[in-house]
Amino acid sequence: MDPRISKHAKILVNYSTQVKKGDNVLIQLNDYGKDLATEIYKEASILGGSPLILTTPTEAVRGYYELTPEEYLRVFPEHYYELIKASDVVISIRSDENTRYLSNADPERISARKLTVKNIDDERLRKRWCLTLYPTPAYAQEAEMSLKEYEDFVYSAMLLNWDKEKEKMDEIKKIMDDTDKVRIIGKETDLTMSIKNRTTVVSDGTHNMPGGEVFTAPIDNSASGKIFFDLPSTRYGKEVHGIRLKLEKGKIVDYSANKNEDFLKAMINTDEGSIRLGELGIGTNRNITKFTRNILFDEKIAGTIHIAIGFAYKECDGINESAIHWDMIKTMKPGQIILDGEIIQKDGKFKWEV
Amino acid sequence: MDPRISKHAKILVNYSTQVKKGDNVLIQLNDYGKDLATEIYKEASILGGSPLILTTPTEAVRGYYELTPEEYLRVFPEHYYELIKASDVVISIRSDENTRYLSNADPERISARKLTVKNIDDERLRKRWCLTLYPTPAYAQEAEMSLKEYEDFVYSAMLLNWDKEKEKMDEIKKIMDDTDKVRIIGKETDLTMSIKNRTTVVSDGTHNMPGGEVFTAPIDNSASGKIFFDLPSTRYGKEVHGIRLKLEKGKIVDYSANKNEDFLKAMINTDEGSIRLGELGIGTNRNITKFTRNILFDEKIAGTIHIAIGFAYKECDGINESAIHWDMIKTMKPGQIILDGEIIQKDGKFKWEV
Repeated sequence: MDPRISKHAKILVNYSTQVKKGDNVLIQLNDYGKDLATEIYKEASILGGSPLILTTPTEAVRGYYELTPEEYLRVFPEHYYELIKASDVVISIRSDENTRYLSNADPERISARKLTVKNIDDERLRKRWCLTLYPTPAYAQEAEMSLKEYEDFVYSAMLLNWDKEKEKMDEIKKIMDDTDKVRIIGKETDLTMSIKNRTTVVSDGTHNMPGGEVFTAPIDNSASGKIFFDLPSTRYGKEVHGIRLKLEKGKIVDYSANKNEDFLKAMINTDEGSIRLGELGIGTNRNITKFTRNILFDEKIAGTIHIAIGFAYKECDGINESAIHWDMIKTMKPGQIILDGEIIQKDGKFKWEV
Repeated sequence: MDPRISKHAKILVNYSTQVKKGDNVLIQLNDYGKDLATEIYKEASILGGSPLILTTPTEAVRGYYELTPEEYLRVFPEHYYELIKASDVVISIRSDENTRYLSNADPERISARKLTVKNIDDERLRKRWCLTLYPTPAYAQEAEMSLKEYEDFVYSAMLLNWDKEKEKMDEIKKIMDDTDKVRIIGKETDLTMSIKNRTTVVSDGTHNMPGGEVFTAPIDNSASGKIFFDLPSTRYGKEVHGIRLKLEKGKIVDYSANKNEDFLKAMINTDEGSIRLGELGIGTNRNITKFTRNILFDEKIAGTIHIAIGFAYKECDGINESAIHWDMIKTMKPGQIILDGEIIQKDGKFKWEV
């Protein structure tokens, strides 16, 4: 076994979720990653935690959407809810054997199901949760790398000194916590919003491994202007290119995409909350230098910002609610992040980095 | 995918556990069998069930026993208990990558853990549960077959017309339900016991796939005499050869084994109930003709009987309680099964088969 898998497991258990005696630990994965799950299982056992591994193969999920009769999409998985409620720690490992397994699934069926299980997703976010990734050939393929190169990429982004990373990000948080007006300027982009009295959260490797972003929730009726996302957004195996959004008083009033605009439309129209922004984030992980078509990494690329439609995180004091939370990323070269009139980042570099 | 995997899944969902709308379905596996679990997931979804797949890799279990500090062996996995309680159907798939993964684990630690989670095992038996097997190279190796041959063996034992099998077994049940005294005669064996007013259960593929045995619970203080098991019994990767038991008034008063007697001793001394018999069974599956070192199949070999130490099944109206239930098998060639004085099986053939 690659010794980095063991190190990864130790970080997740000891640093990210801090497992202790009596903790009910749930480990979730898809296709690959049995060795990582096993290492987490053992590390948790050493600390007196009770681990369980839940596997949801991508083919099972695809088959579910293809085969389940319409009326059954509303069936609530009571046992899953009870399992999540009784868990203290939830570690989710993305480990798809094929990232496009839902490319031809019906997005309306997916949204319907999401609404049915929303309580469960909400409950999970009340736990000590962490989302991470196990390098698979499918992710390497998306990243246009060999598996070997992709493993190096993944572990270089994750096996960091997280205390040090946290310190750097805390500096940005300090500024943003005191900020009212944010202005984002860039290619085809001039967007303003308020983040007044919202809390900026530092992604220090607790909830996401890798960490490496600071993010907050915009004031719900504040976003106005336009923004162009040069990087594609993927979801359920769909890739949406060249998203342009126009916002007024916090609402998306116009949108377009160069590819898969229908899918963008379905996502925006999921519910009342998906027409508003749930997040503004700034990437800070200097070991993530390449766009790899994976939001867990892409949103942390140093020199990018991202915006999500849909639900806001409670830790940011956000109030927007939705069944979805979908990120869109933009490189800031060229670009400026202006906080209360002051340029704090220009062309991807913070003012103290220049 | 081998089309027999799909047939296997359909039998488990439609026949064995009869999944229906709203059922919370839990699928459990170890190492292999993701494709079978996925097929079960899809079949259950079609019927309106909510499937979940719990994976417990053998290496995770081995690591647990090696690494968990003594004091933590009593930690109760609350989330697992809640999950089982909220499940309606539990399908367990044995799918070990190595059957001897616990060969060097401490049996006392295993027994201690078994006691801790006994409530959970009991709860599972109150559900519509089914235990089955996915053919792995490790099981094929135990059976001294290639994987290809072993797959043929497994599916020929499982993909049967279970309504017809049930009819045949019901004949034997009818006789046993009216029986008081059972006498087993064979090599180094003359054992009597009462099964008066106990219920004989037909293993018709509901709880075990493959099915193919009839079994009951002896009256607790009735077993007297001696029995020799010519076939080895395995548990936790240990193989115990040539078990001889001497019983008086239902209790094991003497025992020996040709190999791993210490392990036999530890098992018998697990608790108050493991010193008594919990089961008497008669194998009836004519497609299982070979001993394969796997109790799920071996106990169903036509022409064998088996006896278990430890807990009795409630469906048999058995009352013996224990943290364990461990089967020992004996070929009945030569041998006789005598029920209330009448020979109903001689040298492995029922009187109506001669």
